[in-house]
Amino acid sequence: MSDQRLSELGLTLPAAPAPLGAYVPAVRTGNLLFLSGMLPIAGHEPLFVGRLGRELDVDQARRAAHAAALNALAVARHELGTLDRVSRVVRLGVFIATDGDVRDQARVADGASELMRDVFGADKSSARLVLGVASLPLGVPVELEVILEVRP
Amino acid sequence: MSDQRLSELGLTLPAAPAPLGAYVPAVRTGNLLFLSGMLPIAGHEPLFVGRLGRELDVDQARRAAHAAALNALAVARHELGTLDRVSRVVRLGVFIATDGDVRDQARVADGASELMRDVFGADKSSARLVLGVASLPLGVPVELEVILEVRP
Amino acid sequence: MSDQRLSELGLTLPAAPAPLGAYVPAVRTGNLLFLSGMLPIAGHEPLFVGRLGRELDVDQARRAAHAAALNALAVARHELGTLDRVSRVVRLGVFIATDGDVRDQARVADGASELMRDVFGADKSSARLVLGVASLPLGVPVELEVILEVRP
Repeated sequence: MSDQRLSELGLTLPAAPAPLGAYVPAVRTGNLLFLSGMLPIAGHEPLFVGRLGRELDVDQARRAAHAAALNALAVARHELGTLDRVSRVVRLGVFIATDGDVRDQARVADGASELMRDVFGADKSSARLVLGVASLPLGVPVELEVILEVRP
Repeated sequence: MSDQRLSELGLTLPAAPAPLGAYVPAVRTGNLLFLSGMLPIAGHEPLFVGRLGRELDVDQARRAAHAAALNALAVARHELGTLDRVSRVVRLGVFIATDGDVRDQARVADGASELMRDVFGADKSSARLVLGVASLPLGVPVELEVILEVRP
Repeated sequence: MSDQRLSELGLTLPAAPAPLGAYVPAVRTGNLLFLSGMLPIAGHEPLFVGRLGRELDVDQARRAAHAAALNALAVARHELGTLDRVSRVVRLGVFIATDGDVRDQARVADGASELMRDVFGADKSSARLVLGVASLPLGVPVELEVILEVRP
């Protein structure tokens, strides 16, 4: 039970962040739920600003990935009523703002993947895409793509 | 009716652009239509060249996003016969070539999102991903990812 | 028959690469198979390191795209038992690490698209997204996103 796991992990979800423009937080089609890009923000304020390899190190970027993943869980629960309706994390994309010759993007991405695994269980682990990008909205270091498989 | 909305908005769709390589403009699987990356081009000629934060400002990049979205509508109509078969814009990805410390990618992305909303209606608004990337094909400033839900 | 085409092309698939973190190589939902980001690696060792426009030229990056596509085929065959169950390549994303004013990303991407076409046939050609990114895991020049439509 994913909702129960959240409490066991001592995690409290933030309020689901509102969109930054002309879009919605999530769209369901069939049994797939596509979330909008999830950022490490509270309201519209960034919790982390900077790029991996310049202003931020791996540990800081990992915590940003974790914060963005909490927002993803908040949006999913808001859309579905309960995280227990998530039957699989289909794909997690982790997009990390980087500068220079950065090679340890995977360690940063695990900051999001490990939270997802702890909440949903290892049997629901996702496929994953990890990219180092040039910049992200509001100057944050990490953005997540999330596609969930959900029960009716 | 989306086709009628196009005329009401005074918009004429360009010819659907041909691929730049060994791929097709769109693939349908089940009730999802995945478009190829849509660029602000006419034929294979770029309508805008440069990066946000260096050669182009927010307003120019917004117009590039709008031009790419018109190409997306052209490809969708070519594939489906009519835009009225689009039941939902599932996800819009807006990838913006940026240089330096750029933070207002969301305003650029709205150049595409607002066109989609005006044509399909706010009730069909998409989830959205916005990334600042290092470079795009042909030197254009914006590329769109589009996933549509379609009726048989 | 895709498996037979592999032999006719004189291609031998590598061992399917293991994940670099807390995720799985592929997730199936309905008749879609989402692969994790595919890199030009053998085991966890990069076969190519560098960026297009700085350390690597178009031909080198094309070969990296080809190597990543072989890994994608290896993962797909491992998941499905046989490539003959692939009914369509839905989307191929080609993400290329670039530096500076690079415009010929499409030629690099064809290094992956042409292999897919040769193995699965032109009638199964994919939609495609091509982006120039800032950096990729392990310093490789190319990463692939692959979504396949599969038979039961």
